[in-house]
Parts: sequence; structure tokens; C-alpha cells
Amino acid sequence: MAKIKQLNVALLGLGTVGKGLVSLLKENEAEILNKHGAKVNIVKIFERNADKLEKFGLDRNLFTDSMEDICGDKNVDIVVELLGRIHPSKEYIESALRAGKNVVTANKDLICMHGGELLKTAKQNGAVLLYEASCLGAVPVINTLKNNFLGDEIKSIKGIFNGTTNYILTKMTQEGLSYEECLKEAQALGYAESDPTNDVEGIDAAYKLCILSRFAFGLDAKFEDISKKGITQITPQDIQIAARLGYTIKLLAIAKCGDGKLEMRVNPVFVSNNHQLSKINGAFNACTIEGNYSDEITLIGRGAGSHPTASAVANDIMNFAHKMGDVGQRSLKKAKMEKDGHMKYYLRMSVTDRAGILSGIAKIFGDNKISIESVIQDKNDNPDIKSLIIVTHMTTSGSMAKALEKISRAPSVQSVDSVIEVMG
Amino acid sequence: MAKIKQLNVALLGLGTVGKGLVSLLKENEAEILNKHGAKVNIVKIFERNADKLEKFGLDRNLFTDSMEDICGDKNVDIVVELLGRIHPSKEYIESALRAGKNVVTANKDLICMHGGELLKTAKQNGAVLLYEASCLGAVPVINTLKNNFLGDEIKSIKGIFNGTTNYILTKMTQEGLSYEECLKEAQALGYAESDPTNDVEGIDAAYKLCILSRFAFGLDAKFEDISKKGITQITPQDIQIAARLGYTIKLLAIAKCGDGKLEMRVNPVFVSNNHQLSKINGAFNACTIEGNYSDEITLIGRGAGSHPTASAVANDIMNFAHKMGDVGQRSLKKAKMEKDGHMKYYLRMSVTDRAGILSGIAKIFGDNKISIESVIQDKNDNPDIKSLIIVTHMTTSGSMAKALEKISRAPSVQSVDSVIEVMG
Repeated sequence: MAKIKQLNVALLGLGTVGKGLVSLLKENEAEILNKHGAKVNIVKIFERNADKLEKFGLDRNLFTDSMEDICGDKNVDIVVELLGRIHPSKEYIESALRAGKNVVTANKDLICMHGGELLKTAKQNGAVLLYEASCLGAVPVINTLKNNFLGDEIKSIKGIFNGTTNYILTKMTQEGLSYEECLKEAQALGYAESDPTNDVEGIDAAYKLCILSRFAFGLDAKFEDISKKGITQITPQDIQIAARLGYTIKLLAIAKCGDGKLEMRVNPVFVSNNHQLSKINGAFNACTIEGNYSDEITLIGRGAGSHPTASAVANDIMNFAHKMGDVGQRSLKKAKMEKDGHMKYYLRMSVTDRAGILSGIAKIFGDNKISIESVIQDKNDNPDIKSLIIVTHMTTSGSMAKALEKISRAPSVQSVDSVIEVMG
Repeated sequence: MAKIKQLNVALLGLGTVGKGLVSLLKENEAEILNKHGAKVNIVKIFERNADKLEKFGLDRNLFTDSMEDICGDKNVDIVVELLGRIHPSKEYIESALRAGKNVVTANKDLICMHGGELLKTAKQNGAVLLYEASCLGAVPVINTLKNNFLGDEIKSIKGIFNGTTNYILTKMTQEGLSYEECLKEAQALGYAESDPTNDVEGIDAAYKLCILSRFAFGLDAKFEDISKKGITQITPQDIQIAARLGYTIKLLAIAKCGDGKLEMRVNPVFVSNNHQLSKINGAFNACTIEGNYSDEITLIGRGAGSHPTASAVANDIMNFAHKMGDVGQRSLKKAKMEKDGHMKYYLRMSVTDRAGILSGIAKIFGDNKISIESVIQDKNDNPDIKSLIIVTHMTTSGSMAKALEKISRAPSVQSVDSVIEVMG
């Protein structure tokens, strides 16, 4: 058996994402060993005091409040920065890179403003800096720009890069409420901060647009070159007019490159209802990348939150278990097949219009341990026949096959016309 | 200046995708040199006769009809197989791999049925076999499964893997037509083949599901273990009932893995209208990957066609210009900024309800070279005031700023209430 690779991580910051990462590494320990032949050990946690560790069930001995302690520890391979803000995170990352540690960060402000400088420091010290989690949480948009479109010329990137504003706009659109009402609700639910400026003025989205533009176009995109306009002026009236004309209003981050010139902005946009980005609702994030041969590719997923952001951080960590980047195809294990499909069903059948039929059919389902979610009886072209529509709860294809055999032989059932899977 | 890397390609098959690839390599030559410091040369084209090359404006001298010729040529680095079908493509790829050539293929049937064997041959001969284009055309789903979710346990993949059937189902849904009518139209438009069996019975989607399941779960998924049901039995009645209940019928390929057991099927599904996959219309493809921490990530794009498929093939080729996989972040060039935003505009203004107002405003737009796409005059709460809504054609933010300055000073204009970008 191959030797298990040990990856020793120093974690800076045990906040929402830090806790998500600790939880992921524990819950997915066996999966990570199986996939990568590796084990990730958190060997130090940088925090203000040790009580926070203990409250989260972690060993007090992992606690440190000294970056010197971390940088001087030969045992530490990777420093994961989840403190946020530019200072002192920048100085901490610099000292880690200078000590030859690989660094993973989710810090979008920092990478937007000082990414170039930090990447240079990394290179000079033979270290690697990764930051997939800085843009769009679990949506792997940096990796997609790194590993794809390699033969294409990327024409544009456009996206919904901020979940808070998309939640507010979705609410305004679906319920006809004002911006102020929806902001209050978002704040009450914890989707928006008490000072929502960074989100609602498009600043947060602009940080991400800046980082992604560098990958998309190979240009030194700068935050101050992005024109920014938020959603505070959007009215229910404009949203209604947009709907009438076939559009949905979204806060889009847009970067285009043509004739060597770069154009970047964050502003509300009437998005045609035919476009994928018009259909992204709630707190979801999305990015559409347009290559000159690939055409538009859209990625959608959760752009924030403890688990999704931890997923992106963990992905960067696992990259260090391999040569950087492509981890190749694993050697495949023998699959144990599940013969029975697990699903919900929709059934449509033609039945004689007579009292008591439903109870007979319901009994057959019950006997086969299939429970029914909903039943509709519909008229049919033939007045003596009714269409009986049934949606079941989760069951197996084996149970359904048995039930269907009995149902098709029931005297009141003329025919079973449709059997289709139901999802969601 | 760094030396330009030369990548010499032998192309097997000058069909739709082959032609797309030739066109991409020509059109994007400067972009590829700029991005990768590399040049891709097509040095041989395997076809039945040389006339086909000449018809497409290619040098007859590139023609060959001998695999020995290609395998024996030390100058050839990469063999790109775009012939399709299992035989003789399998034998051709095997001989190329044995000669130590790297191979790129778009052949889903072959990779589904014999991928494991071919990867083994590649490894034994120190060569690499890549096949991003075999699944979902330009949608980088294989690379996404390779390079992401590294710390996650993937629970399921679900997707719309066949554009022909999605086109037919979309048409049936939007226009209330029968399966037979929509199939005929798809055939007339060239979206469906004269024998549509592979598409409409879910076989094509099952090939892709099999390949992707290997990457997602690390298991030796087999085509014959996939239960397959097509769309030929779907009726307008079921589509209507689905809509009434809040669902859209889609042909989904589904693979789930839990407790070490793999469950795979292709069949029609009632997809909840809240789910991204319910919103994928026409010939588009999509794949939703669910990690236990990332939650669902959905990728959408063009799953077929000359240019999108060539884009995926070119991406694999360019991987050989670097160490496999991650190409890292390029050194950034100085960005030339386009100060003017290029966009269409929506404007809403309150104007005095008087004849001749529109012509005055239209003149201001005309003077600033802004052309108007549509105008709506709406009632306002105040009976003396009207809302004037204007959507422009493409213009610049500079022209619009000038026009707005004049408009806001026009005597009939009470206020300019909204200025919002319009896309699509």
C-alpha cells in the first residue's frame, strides 16, 4: 500500500468558514484518504484566545496567537487564511510565503488589491498561493478559467457575483416589494449586514470581477477601473416594466475585452428572460464565460456560506496533495451496483368512473410500502373514464414494478398511461 | 524572448468537428501564442482522399490514409481522433498510443466502452489520452470533475446530456405539439438524425453518464448497468399536467452514490420548476454536480456543434503545451482601459403630457448618435404627467451622458427617473 501523504495545516481564523473547514476535514476524512491517499491535519489554529477552540470541541493545544510560531514550525506545510480584511492578513500571508509555506485564502479584498504582489512573493519563495474561495464560494470559476478555454479567446465574463443583492432583487421581483422592505427582510434573515454598503453598492461584486478578469484576459485589471452602480435606486415600477418587456433586473458584473481594450462595470441590468442569468434566483451566484469558439458557458452555485466556501478552500488544500492542478483520473474501483432505482413517481392511469376505486388503488400502493404524496382526478374525453394522477413519495423501482403489476390487473383500471420519475 | 513551443498534430477525420478545429487553430493562432507561447501545427490529416482537404482550402500534402505513416512520424506529437464510431478508431488510437503519441478524442461511444483499456495502454507507453469533448461539447464537465470537489464527497450527478431530446421536449412544452411533430421538425432542422434511436432512447446520454460517473465516484461504471428509457412515450397531456403541478419534463441522466452503491439511469423526469435543470431550453446541455459541502453546482453550455466541440478538443491539445492540467496564472499584461461602456439603455422619465415632446427628445438622442429601439408612453399617478420609457440600441456611456444632460434640461422633462443597462 502506498504511503499516506500528510498535509499539515495552520488555520488562521476560526469563524464561519474556518468552522466549516474543520467540519469538512473531519466528516470527509475517509473520502479524502480514498481519493487522494492523503490526510489533512490541522496542527495550529491562530485565534485571539484558546476558549474559542474549546467551545468548538477542539484541542486547546492547537491554539496560537503568534505568526512567528506558525512560520517557524517546519511541520506546517500550508497556511489557510480565513481572517478576512486586508490588514493584518496581508502581512501574515507575506510572512508565511517568505517562510516557504503554501497559502490558501478566501480573502477577495486582499487578492483584488494586492494579489499581484503576493503572487510575486510566493514565486520568489518557491511557494504557491491559491484563492478559489475568494470568488463565488463553491462555484469553481477560477479553476474553470485556469483549466479551460485554453484554445479560445475569451470575449466576456458576466455574472451575478453577490448573493445579498440577488436575494433582494428576486424578492422585489417575485413579491412586488420596495428595495427598503426587502433589504430589511434580508437583514433580519442574516443575508445582509447592518451596514449593507459593500453589497448593495456593487463593491463586493467588483472585487470578484477584478480577480476573474485577470484570469480571463491575462490583463492587470484594477479595482479602481471598474465603474460601480448598486441597486438602491431600483424601483418596483422598473421591475414591472422590465417584466412587461421580457426582462428581469439583475445586478451584473461585466467585463469585456475586444481590440485589446478592457471594459469593466458592475450595475443593474435588464437581462433578457431567454438568458440563463435571468433565471438565477435567491442567494445563488452565477458566471457566464463567453469564448469565441465555446460560446457561452454558465456556472451556477452557492457563492457564500460556511460549507460551500469551505468546499472551495478544501479543494485548494487538496491541490497540494498532488502536483499542482490536474489530479488526473484515479484508478477505478469496482462498482457495487444498486439495482433498484430510488425515486418519486408520477403515474397517470385511465380508470372507470366509479366510487371506491381510489381506495382499492391506494391499498395496492400501501401493500407495497409506497406512500402517496398527491392525487388528482381529471376528466377524460370518454365520460365513463377518468384520468387518475398520482404522485408518490420516495420509493424504489422494485416496489413500483410490483405495485404496477397488481394495478394493471385491477378490474377498474383501463390502462396505465404514464409512469415518469419526479425530482424535487 | 522565450522559445515558441511547437505542437505537431495529426488529425484523423476532417468532418464537422475536424473543420471546426482547423478553423479555430487558424483564427486563434495569435491568442494561443500569446496565452501559451505555443503554436499548433496540423502536420497530417487522415482522410479517405485528398480532395476533401483541397475543398476546405488545405494543402493536399497534409493528406494521408495510413496510420503507419502517422505513427512512424517522429514529428507528430499529438493524434486527434475525430472519426467517431468504435472501429477502427479504437485500433488507430491504440497504435498511436503504442507509438508514444499523446491522443485527444471526442469519441464518447469508444471511451464509454473501452476507456479503461485505452488509458492503460496510454500509461504503459508513457502517453496521455484526453477526451473532454466526448461529454457535453464545450461544457467543461470532465475537467470540472477532475479539478474540483477534491475535498468533497460527490453525492450525485444529474443532467441534460442530449441536445436533440431537450430540443424536442422544449418544443413540445412551449408549443403543445406531439412528440412525432417535434421529432419531424428537429429532423428537418438537422438537430435529429433520420434514425434518431441513439438520441431519443437515451443511449447517447447514457454513454456520457457512464464516462462522467467514473470521474465523479472513482468507480468502474459500466454502460450496461444504466437503465435507459427515452422520450418517445411522452405525451402533451403529461407535459400539461407537469406544468400544472409546477414541473417541467426533461430527459435526465442521473447517477447517485451512497453507502458505496452506485445507481444510474437515463429517463424522463418531472423536474421541479425551482431547479436549474428545469430552465435549460432548446439544444443546450447542463450538468448538476452535488458535493456534500459544495452543494449543487450546475454547468450549462452548448453540448454539440462544430465550434463548441472544437473548443473542447483544442483545450485538451493546449494542455500538452504545459505540464498536464493546471496551466497556472499567466504573467499579466498592462490593461488598456476602455473608458466608455458599450451597452443598450433603458430610460424612464416623467414628462409633461403634451404633443411633440417625443420628437424633441428623439432629436437629442439623434444628435448624440443614439438610436432608439422602442418607446412606450405610460400613465402616471399625476394626470398631467406621463412616463416615457425608452430602450435604445447599442451606444456608449459617453454619448448617453451627453444626451442625458440635454434631456434633463428640456422644458417638458420633469425628471429622469431611471437609467439601466439592457442586455440581450
